[in-house]
Amino acid sequence: MFICLEGIAGSGKTTQTKLLADYLKNVKKKEIFTSAVYEGERRKVVSDFMNASGIKLDQNAVMFLFQALHAAQYHEVKNALSINKTVIADRWRYSFFAHHVYQDTFGKNENLMFQLDLLAYRSLEPVSIPPKLRHSL
Amino acid sequence: MFICLEGIAGSGKTTQTKLLADYLKNVKKKEIFTSAVYEGERRKVVSDFMNASGIKLDQNAVMFLFQALHAAQYHEVKNALSINKTVIADRWRYSFFAHHVYQDTFGKNENLMFQLDLLAYRSLEPVSIPPKLRHSL
Repeated sequence: MFICLEGIAGSGKTTQTKLLADYLKNVKKKEIFTSAVYEGERRKVVSDFMNASGIKLDQNAVMFLFQALHAAQYHEVKNALSINKTVIADRWRYSFFAHHVYQDTFGKNENLMFQLDLLAYRSLEPVSIPPKLRHSL
Repeated sequence: MFICLEGIAGSGKTTQTKLLADYLKNVKKKEIFTSAVYEGERRKVVSDFMNASGIKLDQNAVMFLFQALHAAQYHEVKNALSINKTVIADRWRYSFFAHHVYQDTFGKNENLMFQLDLLAYRSLEPVSIPPKLRHSL
């Protein structure tokens, strides 16, 4: 099973990811793999590289860098799923889409955004919660 | 003036860039700015980051990372040109295109490649040498 938590910075994704991972591991006896491209130690590696390379100064460059990280993330999630781990992703595509629509990175070309997404995350999707259940949660 | 040298690894771009820069500086008294995203110290920074992030293992991720670097490179070239420096780029878009057409990164979707290029290098082009002159060089 592939679960994803989306949300803006400070909304509690990391906390909820940890609580959910602990519950699934200890109560449901699942093997858990958590994935996040910009949390914990990775945040420093990415941030340092952005500063060293000048990428931080350009919105399009930042967008490309995150798609590079997403393409790598796709593999670690796919590999974990292939050995039957339960995957919890701290963000997948939707926060990224929300950010770049807000920033107007792609202008009116939303189709381009979906094409880039396909090169990064391919068609790997987290589980969908039916709207009714979503409402009752 | 914006000059670009393209070519495969080992074809002598770095050597020719240095010779051309020295000539334009010493004989023609031009102020020179050279730009390369994957030469000298930058190569180590980029290579280390590719290894640390898992990007190196995915062709699409590598493509996105280089587009991120190109978007940053665009700014340094544009800035140097705006203060009337002569810019020599050790690669611009064509080696990248050749590599990804060879690798089939974009499949049959060449249009997507041009759209990504526009987000990275915008429409900044090196000078074109007319075919006749090119032939006589």
